[in-house]
Amino acid sequence: MSGNAREPGRSTVHRLLTLLDVFDGTDLSLADVAERSQLPLTTAHRMLAALETWGGVERTPTGRYRIGLHLWKLGNRATSATTLRETALPLMQDLYESTHENVQLAIRDGHHALIIERLTGLRAVPTLTEVGGHLPLHATGVGKLLLAHVHPELLAELHARGLRRYTAYTLTMPGRLAASLATTRTTGIATAREEMTLGSASIAAPITDATGTVQAALSIVVHATTDLTRYTPALHTAAKEISRRLAATGGRVRSRSRLDRLSVASGHI
Amino acid sequence: MSGNAREPGRSTVHRLLTLLDVFDGTDLSLADVAERSQLPLTTAHRMLAALETWGGVERTPTGRYRIGLHLWKLGNRATSATTLRETALPLMQDLYESTHENVQLAIRDGHHALIIERLTGLRAVPTLTEVGGHLPLHATGVGKLLLAHVHPELLAELHARGLRRYTAYTLTMPGRLAASLATTRTTGIATAREEMTLGSASIAAPITDATGTVQAALSIVVHATTDLTRYTPALHTAAKEISRRLAATGGRVRSRSRLDRLSVASGHI
Repeated sequence: MSGNAREPGRSTVHRLLTLLDVFDGTDLSLADVAERSQLPLTTAHRMLAALETWGGVERTPTGRYRIGLHLWKLGNRATSATTLRETALPLMQDLYESTHENVQLAIRDGHHALIIERLTGLRAVPTLTEVGGHLPLHATGVGKLLLAHVHPELLAELHARGLRRYTAYTLTMPGRLAASLATTRTTGIATAREEMTLGSASIAAPITDATGTVQAALSIVVHATTDLTRYTPALHTAAKEISRRLAATGGRVRSRSRLDRLSVASGHI
Repeated sequence: MSGNAREPGRSTVHRLLTLLDVFDGTDLSLADVAERSQLPLTTAHRMLAALETWGGVERTPTGRYRIGLHLWKLGNRATSATTLRETALPLMQDLYESTHENVQLAIRDGHHALIIERLTGLRAVPTLTEVGGHLPLHATGVGKLLLAHVHPELLAELHARGLRRYTAYTLTMPGRLAASLATTRTTGIATAREEMTLGSASIAAPITDATGTVQAALSIVVHATTDLTRYTPALHTAAKEISRRLAATGGRVRSRSRLDRLSVASGHI
């Protein structure tokens, strides 16, 4: 992997990807970028200039750098995330409307749950989550739902790394967490009550592909005092309908998006 | 700009960015990527391999390439798009709930309107738009709203390039389009009735920053037979509230997202 003088191109590609990864959503100075990416100031500057011309980074009024709109657009062409999102959104809308609570859609991304879409209203309980953000697998509804359906080795890995105790209710003991996940596999529902944030609770149901494999988790996040079981039927119904649509029309969402782009790319406007 | 033997690194950066730009949301073979990017097959293969390791592209079961989740995550760190989206979403939710129609949020991106967020339900009129997709400035509600508030030179440029006639109702004559945009500047509302798609109409209101400059457009897309004026008060109210929140709490959305990432990046989970 390490670049060297005999492979200048390869080395440059890796350097550029390393540089992109230092952006965490905050605005960074040239010195920040160089330090975080461990690149010489001149190299970082040259790459940032090329990225800025391309639109992948943009400058703030004070001259700092941040991820630009061009990368946002490119990221939206990630088929797996956008197909799932486009398929789930109408059902998530209905679920939001019938509950007025936070509705979340997540997939597993390594050792975390990754939020693909999130709906929230003015009256819903505040959450820290955002689209593209991560949540712990062991302390949230979507996380526990996803964790319950992966190879047990991952659970062992998480325990080996040490499970963070967010609140007094976070399940960090191997036996208790395993029992909770076993319940999820039986009932098809995962719940987390104040396990990540005091005052909040969540309930999640699985979204499966045509083979029945769990691909994503759909959840509702509510005040901790809420009776979670009242949401079970609506959540299951929405998750099952999303699963059916994913299996039946996975290709349709893509071809529609292609049509959309063609109408613009035709250059008549 | 052109890379050469004396600037191998710069050349490589430009090649990589060119390669990324060939992805349009469809799955591409190695040959497709090489041809579209006009790179030698070996160079394209080497860059795709590095991108795949990084997660920026992923392989389909048949070995084709597509944009991967890592780029989607990186794109979501584009502060300008995510701050606007996070601020607007609760109001867009309320608007959807009170109308059950498509609710869209767009900004100007060069010669097009770029969809930042879109809510839709099962009963809304079907649209071709998707998040990250483009719409014409001269033939949609959001587009005309944005076009009405930019420098007149852009309108002249669009006319010079030739305005595409999507339907018999598309305004392509300079005088008629200019009159429609003038009305928008007076009323604060842009409408487009079957100007892009037969059967659909849209109405848009401006989202402004603290200085009163139009930054984005909020719209509702409905069946063409609908009386658009019934949506004016709700749309104006939502757009003004989003504008107020953007001005007042633009920084808050960002710092919240930073908090979210820190809790994950701390490595305790």
